[in-house]
Amino acid sequence: MSESTSIGIVAPKIAHFSEPLALKSGEILPQYDLVYETYGTLNADRSNAVMICHALSGHHHVAGKHSEEDKYPGWWDNLIGPGRPLDTNKFFVIGLNNLGGCHGSSGPATLNPATGKPWGAAFPVVTVEDWVNSQARLADYLGISQLAAVIGGSLGGMQALQWTLAYPERVRHALVIASAPNLTAQNMAFNEVARQAIITDPEFYGGDYYAQGVVPRRGLRIARMLGHITYLSDDAMGAKFGRKLRDGNIKYGFDVEFEMESYLRYQGDKFAGEFDANTYLRMTRALDYFDPALPYGGDLSAALAGVKAKFLVVSFTSDWRFSPARSREIVKALLDNELSVSYAEVTAAHGHDAFLMPDPHYHAILRTYLGTVLSAADDASRSAADTGVAS
Amino acid sequence: MSESTSIGIVAPKIAHFSEPLALKSGEILPQYDLVYETYGTLNADRSNAVMICHALSGHHHVAGKHSEEDKYPGWWDNLIGPGRPLDTNKFFVIGLNNLGGCHGSSGPATLNPATGKPWGAAFPVVTVEDWVNSQARLADYLGISQLAAVIGGSLGGMQALQWTLAYPERVRHALVIASAPNLTAQNMAFNEVARQAIITDPEFYGGDYYAQGVVPRRGLRIARMLGHITYLSDDAMGAKFGRKLRDGNIKYGFDVEFEMESYLRYQGDKFAGEFDANTYLRMTRALDYFDPALPYGGDLSAALAGVKAKFLVVSFTSDWRFSPARSREIVKALLDNELSVSYAEVTAAHGHDAFLMPDPHYHAILRTYLGTVLSAADDASRSAADTGVAS
Repeated sequence: MSESTSIGIVAPKIAHFSEPLALKSGEILPQYDLVYETYGTLNADRSNAVMICHALSGHHHVAGKHSEEDKYPGWWDNLIGPGRPLDTNKFFVIGLNNLGGCHGSSGPATLNPATGKPWGAAFPVVTVEDWVNSQARLADYLGISQLAAVIGGSLGGMQALQWTLAYPERVRHALVIASAPNLTAQNMAFNEVARQAIITDPEFYGGDYYAQGVVPRRGLRIARMLGHITYLSDDAMGAKFGRKLRDGNIKYGFDVEFEMESYLRYQGDKFAGEFDANTYLRMTRALDYFDPALPYGGDLSAALAGVKAKFLVVSFTSDWRFSPARSREIVKALLDNELSVSYAEVTAAHGHDAFLMPDPHYHAILRTYLGTVLSAADDASRSAADTGVAS
Repeated sequence: MSESTSIGIVAPKIAHFSEPLALKSGEILPQYDLVYETYGTLNADRSNAVMICHALSGHHHVAGKHSEEDKYPGWWDNLIGPGRPLDTNKFFVIGLNNLGGCHGSSGPATLNPATGKPWGAAFPVVTVEDWVNSQARLADYLGISQLAAVIGGSLGGMQALQWTLAYPERVRHALVIASAPNLTAQNMAFNEVARQAIITDPEFYGGDYYAQGVVPRRGLRIARMLGHITYLSDDAMGAKFGRKLRDGNIKYGFDVEFEMESYLRYQGDKFAGEFDANTYLRMTRALDYFDPALPYGGDLSAALAGVKAKFLVVSFTSDWRFSPARSREIVKALLDNELSVSYAEVTAAHGHDAFLMPDPHYHAILRTYLGTVLSAADDASRSAADTGVAS
């Protein structure tokens, strides 16, 4: 295995798009910015680009640090860098913050050009389909007609799948990790509780809290605490916290008694101080709405009939949010269409969050699969690029 | 099978206890009321009494109706009545509202005799052990030295188990249903999110909201919505709601889109209008704290060494809140002590809530087991009653 290092110091960039974007809701976003980062070098025939699609609370800062002083690197730094499974010596990697986000791309907290004030509640409800359309424009902007691969975990995996549906000629490989072809009723129920916690916070002001100088911190905190429960498996929580008391003895009250409560409150407080509530609402709705089989009466195989990409689908045994059974639904629909698909069900204790962890087995699978992506055999599938927009 | 009917019209009674109750927290409740109901007739030798222990949001009104006009009967009416599995032609059944409750027993919303104002935050944190001690006093009050059985589901099952630990001579049978020997970290995490939603509601006022003329309705609503997710299995939610849209088309916003959202909001609103938030906090803490194995270094078998009762333990395959594995922990510890235990793992789709449903297989198990309780064979285990307080 080659030596593996972080990509080092990186800097975000902003792409402005002045061509209106028609959204699935029927609304039109007249213009917008996307903040993005790139790692590695685009090769001469522009065939080595990999797009990273982020999940609910993710963003463009996927790898490296913005300065030597940064305490933590980007959120998927363990995956991306020289010698890492997604090797920046070979690939040109693109991370972006999705529309509606709160890390630099146009979203509820950014200024609405029409009013000069924050969009707030007026920022449209965006979908996975809208994101992928905006990501395709970012690829255009970067002169990339065809992506070597699109990679995403969770909500990011839904975007990777959507890429192969919306732009079958523009993506050779899709890596769909810890994802699902749609949410279950239970998944949606958790989203609804989180949203209701935010919306009923007296400081939400119908989504226009920016003008009030407040944020619905209480609601966002509850939403994040709840989220954390669903990201971890019961076993992982048991192993990490069990029933450990924080101070060794029971105090019979409602302050922190158990270690796990301290962890949840910390995570909730931290998130509520950083993330935008309107973005949280939109990210969860994008999850709810994604359902490519819906126009096909629930027949996912029919929905994937036009797909051309090759797939790696990965699930984790302890992921009860997006269980392996949901990944197998995707695998089955791909196989029904005689598409090339590799599937790995990784034994991991971490639950849904396992997709972000540097589990050796998991990373070996990604390394091996990505090793095939720019191989000679892969070239055969690349001809479609010649018809692309930027070739 | 005999004809089965509801017990009919019933009326609650109040028992006042002026002897102080020492609580596990170290606090002392100087006096208190317990509201209770009874169904059936106590037999001459007072050997046919069955106590029903309620779960988080339960109460004393277990069976029958308070008036012909009542829309719904008590919460376990399908179990209790003439000819029903817990047959009131044979048994004298006692339901009560636990201390700290909000249905008539002393609790945060009742008047503190010392101040003449609602207890509010000053009402002590009560535990499963405290409840069982207060229930034993209710048995004394009713002239019952030994219960034929104690029955409870979920948190109620913990009380049934605690009865056999605290009063081994005073209970012949324990029916522990959909329960666990303690909460997992994940179970406790859900409780913590629910409590934080309540406590951070601006109308909570540190628990003394009664004086403000408000209730922390928003927080209680979120707590209940979350609770409902954990009471149902993912499959049950899928079967009941799936991804069904309420109005048939997607509106791309944050009002109700899916049927499931409408259900959760309705359940949350209803509960928030009826239940007391301070009670909710205390019920969840009682769940958190229950852990009979704790003083034995986690060794449940050692904790149950003094138990004498016979057990029926029932779990449900789709219960992910208190999974069958947790019930099997209890069964193992009972068997380690060479106690008599019957165990049934019922195939049911409803999740945790299955313990309240009239599933024929489940009810047949209860009927069969309860059929043995007053049999001649059962008499042999009854001699201990002769040493009891009221014999």
